[in-house]
Amino acid sequence: MNSFQTLSEGSVTSPAGFTAVAVAAGIKKENQLDLALVVSQTDCRCAAMFTKNQVVAAPVIVDRETLAANNSRLRAVVINSKNANACTGETGLANARATQQAAAEALGCTANQILVLSTGVIGVQLPMEKLAAGIAVGAKGLSADNGRLAAEAIMTTDTRPKRLAVQVELPGGTVTIGGMAKGAGMIHPNMATMLAVLTTDAAIAPDILDGLLKTAVNLSFNRISIDGDTSTNDTIFLLANGASGTAVADPDSLAQFGEALNHLCTALAHMIVRDGEGATKFVEIQVTGAHSEADAHQIANTIAISPLVKTAFAGSDANWGRLLMAAGRAGVVFDQSQINLWIGAQQADELQLVANGTPTAYQEKDAAAVFARPEFKILLDVGSGGEGTAVVWTTDLSHDYVSINADYRT
Amino acid sequence: MNSFQTLSEGSVTSPAGFTAVAVAAGIKKENQLDLALVVSQTDCRCAAMFTKNQVVAAPVIVDRETLAANNSRLRAVVINSKNANACTGETGLANARATQQAAAEALGCTANQILVLSTGVIGVQLPMEKLAAGIAVGAKGLSADNGRLAAEAIMTTDTRPKRLAVQVELPGGTVTIGGMAKGAGMIHPNMATMLAVLTTDAAIAPDILDGLLKTAVNLSFNRISIDGDTSTNDTIFLLANGASGTAVADPDSLAQFGEALNHLCTALAHMIVRDGEGATKFVEIQVTGAHSEADAHQIANTIAISPLVKTAFAGSDANWGRLLMAAGRAGVVFDQSQINLWIGAQQADELQLVANGTPTAYQEKDAAAVFARPEFKILLDVGSGGEGTAVVWTTDLSHDYVSINADYRT
Repeated sequence: MNSFQTLSEGSVTSPAGFTAVAVAAGIKKENQLDLALVVSQTDCRCAAMFTKNQVVAAPVIVDRETLAANNSRLRAVVINSKNANACTGETGLANARATQQAAAEALGCTANQILVLSTGVIGVQLPMEKLAAGIAVGAKGLSADNGRLAAEAIMTTDTRPKRLAVQVELPGGTVTIGGMAKGAGMIHPNMATMLAVLTTDAAIAPDILDGLLKTAVNLSFNRISIDGDTSTNDTIFLLANGASGTAVADPDSLAQFGEALNHLCTALAHMIVRDGEGATKFVEIQVTGAHSEADAHQIANTIAISPLVKTAFAGSDANWGRLLMAAGRAGVVFDQSQINLWIGAQQADELQLVANGTPTAYQEKDAAAVFARPEFKILLDVGSGGEGTAVVWTTDLSHDYVSINADYRT
Repeated sequence: MNSFQTLSEGSVTSPAGFTAVAVAAGIKKENQLDLALVVSQTDCRCAAMFTKNQVVAAPVIVDRETLAANNSRLRAVVINSKNANACTGETGLANARATQQAAAEALGCTANQILVLSTGVIGVQLPMEKLAAGIAVGAKGLSADNGRLAAEAIMTTDTRPKRLAVQVELPGGTVTIGGMAKGAGMIHPNMATMLAVLTTDAAIAPDILDGLLKTAVNLSFNRISIDGDTSTNDTIFLLANGASGTAVADPDSLAQFGEALNHLCTALAHMIVRDGEGATKFVEIQVTGAHSEADAHQIANTIAISPLVKTAFAGSDANWGRLLMAAGRAGVVFDQSQINLWIGAQQADELQLVANGTPTAYQEKDAAAVFARPEFKILLDVGSGGEGTAVVWTTDLSHDYVSINADYRT
């Protein structure tokens, strides 16, 4: 039994003391929501993880600086969509800092209490007048009811908002964790064009908060892959304001809170995969029998990003040769005569396709029936005799993916 | 001036002493060519390179064994399309050896003088009766006129045969190098579902032959990328029978022969890219200013395999943000504020898009005009101040790629 409760209508404003607002600031066309503010009524601690790409957007640089100077008195996150503020040079950095300043003035705090996030097209300067005006207007509309709208405002090619909250009954009282994310394209382990803001009213020490976020991200956002590309902007924040009055410090509370946070992040990560650009399939790939978890993860990832595998998913073609081909190019040594492969709709081990490196006498129609499902599982044991195992979640590569990305800027 | 002459109608039978045949053995449907033999009238030396995939097809295992025992008395290569003889276990190995035996009997030599190559679907056993019958029939039809037909017989999803020859006037006499290749999908550095057979009538010592092939492959087949996937079957052979009576041993001859071989391999590699599955663009990506050639190659490759980059090519969208994003995730450290990027139709440096990490004042229509070309060049200087430079050639990721690979087995 889970020790937490899922709030399916929950959002970043489900935890006590958080408000939000969504604004049509005019960065997108046609009066669409394109700006969100998530604000805590009191100072927050903040754990953060950023893209590992060498090319990073201005907000990533500015937020790293901000958090290095202050990770315990944060007040708000300003997020715009449609424009990534990446490859924008000194002007882009100045714009990110001006965004902090505009929010600080509107909210009555200092610039180093503001974090900024941007997502969208690369290489175009932010329309600062519109953005500043949007922030000023937005600051007057903050409400605990607006968490769901905020999740809409951060969408780019996403087709639906991604948000959720979980509630945990700890010995010291009830705490809530809320979250929202945007994804859709450029999704890959190490976070991809992915922005996520998590909020909680628990009181948590900074180093513990960091550890909890790292664990949760490693089990969730770092296990999903849509196209293998990673982004210049990926960022995830976990803000904790302590407004519940309940501390997470003892081992039992930590375990329970961690479990709930992992669940929230995994649920958001799955929403990102299901809403992957052009995605028609949700596929879980589990690799076992590797020498280490890192090896298993590497193999599972290589399968997940293979265009030949992903087009086979799109065609509902149980072309397992491509799964083995992709595993074989992962850079991990194994013995092909020890490979076993299963697929399944409910359980991963329903139908064995490969036994000790050679095809079983399975019926093609049974395999095709599994691959025709909108959701199925693959289990590959590489037979190295180790305990290394890893799961990743991915999608197919469809005609719509090509259409969306060939015409993205038009 | 080149010291060699290109024979545009040339093939593996252009060099003296080589014959070939193409047969419809019934492995493909509808009487299509699916079997080729390339035969030398005298013993050959052979240099070989194989896939680095952990999962390798039976012919790769058998050829490695054969060449370990005998790399100086080879007589023939038997190549079938439509069936890869991969993931076929002990039966597959026995079938590869039986193919050697059948060819040895038909040609009047021993089994360890025969090399075998297969390409096509994974996990299905070869139809040995058809194959053996095809070899027996084929051995009676060998001719020096059949090199071009042989290039047709090895096609799978290729839309056209890939073959060429070059002729070099050396101080000691004229030598010829012929070649054929098949590609189309799963193409990536480290050779991908790529088979190539090169023949020459030059007399070359085995270790020199190995070195010449390695150099040529590194500059050609290892510089192309269609989808980033590598195959279980990739193999390239360079057979030298010495029938011209001209030796390649002195430094001048070696340099001239090497230049011609590099040209032949590069030309065949370009044919593979141009005929990539669903390809509508031929793109040259050059990276300069890296600390090492390996770094430059890694960055160029990462750009070349990025689905977001390749869909931008397909859409003729000069979305250079994606080029920088892909460069940034290559795992090579560089300073984004030192990046310069150019594109061009004829010369790579015609239009500068990025200067010191920020966009120039280029006109979008000028950039779009370059990307709309069927063939264009990209030059990225990562500004690390090193001498490292590398070129790769790739294609776009189009709707047709998805169609071809979603429905490959149906």
